[in-house]
Amino acid sequence: MNLKDLSIKKLEERGVSLDSMAALALSLQKKYTENLTLEDCKSALEMVLGKREVTYAILTGIAIDQAVEKGLFDVEITNIIKEDNPLYGIDEILALSIVNVYGSIALTNFGYLDKLKPGIIGEVDLMGKNHEGCSTFLDDIVGALVAATVSRIAHNEKT
Amino acid sequence: MNLKDLSIKKLEERGVSLDSMAALALSLQKKYTENLTLEDCKSALEMVLGKREVTYAILTGIAIDQAVEKGLFDVEITNIIKEDNPLYGIDEILALSIVNVYGSIALTNFGYLDKLKPGIIGEVDLMGKNHEGCSTFLDDIVGALVAATVSRIAHNEKT
Amino acid sequence: MNLKDLSIKKLEERGVSLDSMAALALSLQKKYTENLTLEDCKSALEMVLGKREVTYAILTGIAIDQAVEKGLFDVEITNIIKEDNPLYGIDEILALSIVNVYGSIALTNFGYLDKLKPGIIGEVDLMGKNHEGCSTFLDDIVGALVAATVSRIAHNEKT
Amino acid sequence: MNLKDLSIKKLEERGVSLDSMAALALSLQKKYTENLTLEDCKSALEMVLGKREVTYAILTGIAIDQAVEKGLFDVEITNIIKEDNPLYGIDEILALSIVNVYGSIALTNFGYLDKLKPGIIGEVDLMGKNHEGCSTFLDDIVGALVAATVSRIAHNEKT
Repeated sequence: MNLKDLSIKKLEERGVSLDSMAALALSLQKKYTENLTLEDCKSALEMVLGKREVTYAILTGIAIDQAVEKGLFDVEITNIIKEDNPLYGIDEILALSIVNVYGSIALTNFGYLDKLKPGIIGEVDLMGKNHEGCSTFLDDIVGALVAATVSRIAHNEKT
Repeated sequence: MNLKDLSIKKLEERGVSLDSMAALALSLQKKYTENLTLEDCKSALEMVLGKREVTYAILTGIAIDQAVEKGLFDVEITNIIKEDNPLYGIDEILALSIVNVYGSIALTNFGYLDKLKPGIIGEVDLMGKNHEGCSTFLDDIVGALVAATVSRIAHNEKT
Repeated sequence: MNLKDLSIKKLEERGVSLDSMAALALSLQKKYTENLTLEDCKSALEMVLGKREVTYAILTGIAIDQAVEKGLFDVEITNIIKEDNPLYGIDEILALSIVNVYGSIALTNFGYLDKLKPGIIGEVDLMGKNHEGCSTFLDDIVGALVAATVSRIAHNEKT
Repeated sequence: MNLKDLSIKKLEERGVSLDSMAALALSLQKKYTENLTLEDCKSALEMVLGKREVTYAILTGIAIDQAVEKGLFDVEITNIIKEDNPLYGIDEILALSIVNVYGSIALTNFGYLDKLKPGIIGEVDLMGKNHEGCSTFLDDIVGALVAATVSRIAHNEKT
């Protein structure tokens, strides 16, 4: 299985579908791009997921979340990550490896999504807060994927 | 005049008071920090403004805006900056030199502020859009200063 | 004239040829990529220069250097930029808008080039230090362009 | 045990002493800061290690390296991290959470160290390449700690 398909499979196993991310990208960008459809957003998202560095960030972040869930790390770092303290910051940094590649439109959308946690991002975040699993890294990764998708659409629109 | 006082003077000349930035920081952070006052925010903002690299970003950004207003740059780059196209991106990058120093809480607040442009940030942005002057760099700098202030307060709170 | 051609013209006016940058990229990457030629490096550099955000950074940085040379900014910020103090940092930040798009290989090569200043980067840097003009932003931009070129070659090689 | 002491303990368990990092910082900065001693470098390094976000990066990076060693992650991501491919990039990104806080002097020193791998960084890197363990994240963290230390010294010197 290639890295893109593996990443999509992992995201779906953690409750994050391509449609839920595309829907969020659509809601953010539709007022700027005329006649934007869910299909457009989904195909932009698939382009984002085709980048190797993007898949590395997804697979690493999910691996950390799963290791924390299963108690595989030392207890001190497990507790820090599980708590998802806003001062932890490593989850946002890892997501930046996705965001940086897509420039400043991606960056501001990422900040916005991370602060308001709309749609699927809020669902993923709650999953962690309700202790149904650890989603410390996943919510930031999903925010980064949506932000990168929005930026990709905005750049194509304006070129 | 030291760099901090010079930066405050320049900001005020461009219509940005410490109070207006402190008020925005307060509105963002009051639900997280109990009993937070405008004075607390103003004093955190003054600490941010005491950092040399922060003043360098302020003075450089305002110098660029002013050069564009006065037509001192070549016409091609003048037009690009004046237009404040969301794809320009150099204004956000310059503001990141302030934001980066204050970690991921600053980063997400910066993205949020840049997207929604509440309070003084919207006023500065409009000033540019209404062609009363160029504020391409200033609105991002103000957003970065407010985001850095919020992060400073959040970190002190939690330590 | 499009942004790419304009950027190349401006770089050449400031003494920086495509060949001098391609030669530096070649010297950095030849031990990793078999049979790499100057032509390969030049064509990778041209791809880098074809990105809009890259041209924005080039045109903005050169505009600042020129404004400083001509004394168009206020005296305080003029002196800070002219001095090219290692603590100024805004020049590196602006160059990062080029580097970030090309991932971590670009970033480490940028740091390396900025520290050692080989080839054309050293020539540009000296031009500033000898007060034949201001090249505070230009040396970092040239470093970023070479670093981005190297990263582009490395990624194609490995894909 | 507080986060600073825990981080120092973890670094030492992985073969990285404070002295080896201080020695590298000294070799990088002694030509810029007169009369700089190993003790000065060690005390600057200890200040860096006193920052919460720095300890989070150290503990997370070492936890990932150890999980890879023990085969606790899924096989695909384990193989990617173990290989320490220059295109992986997540290790550099995590280290940037340390570097960013210390500005552009830290950034250029980090790039330089990551490229040349002098002293303890090369030893850590070799440990991974010789399959005596996984040090994919550790070598970048050590580079970031040394780069941050150098930047701290440079800033104090110049203030």
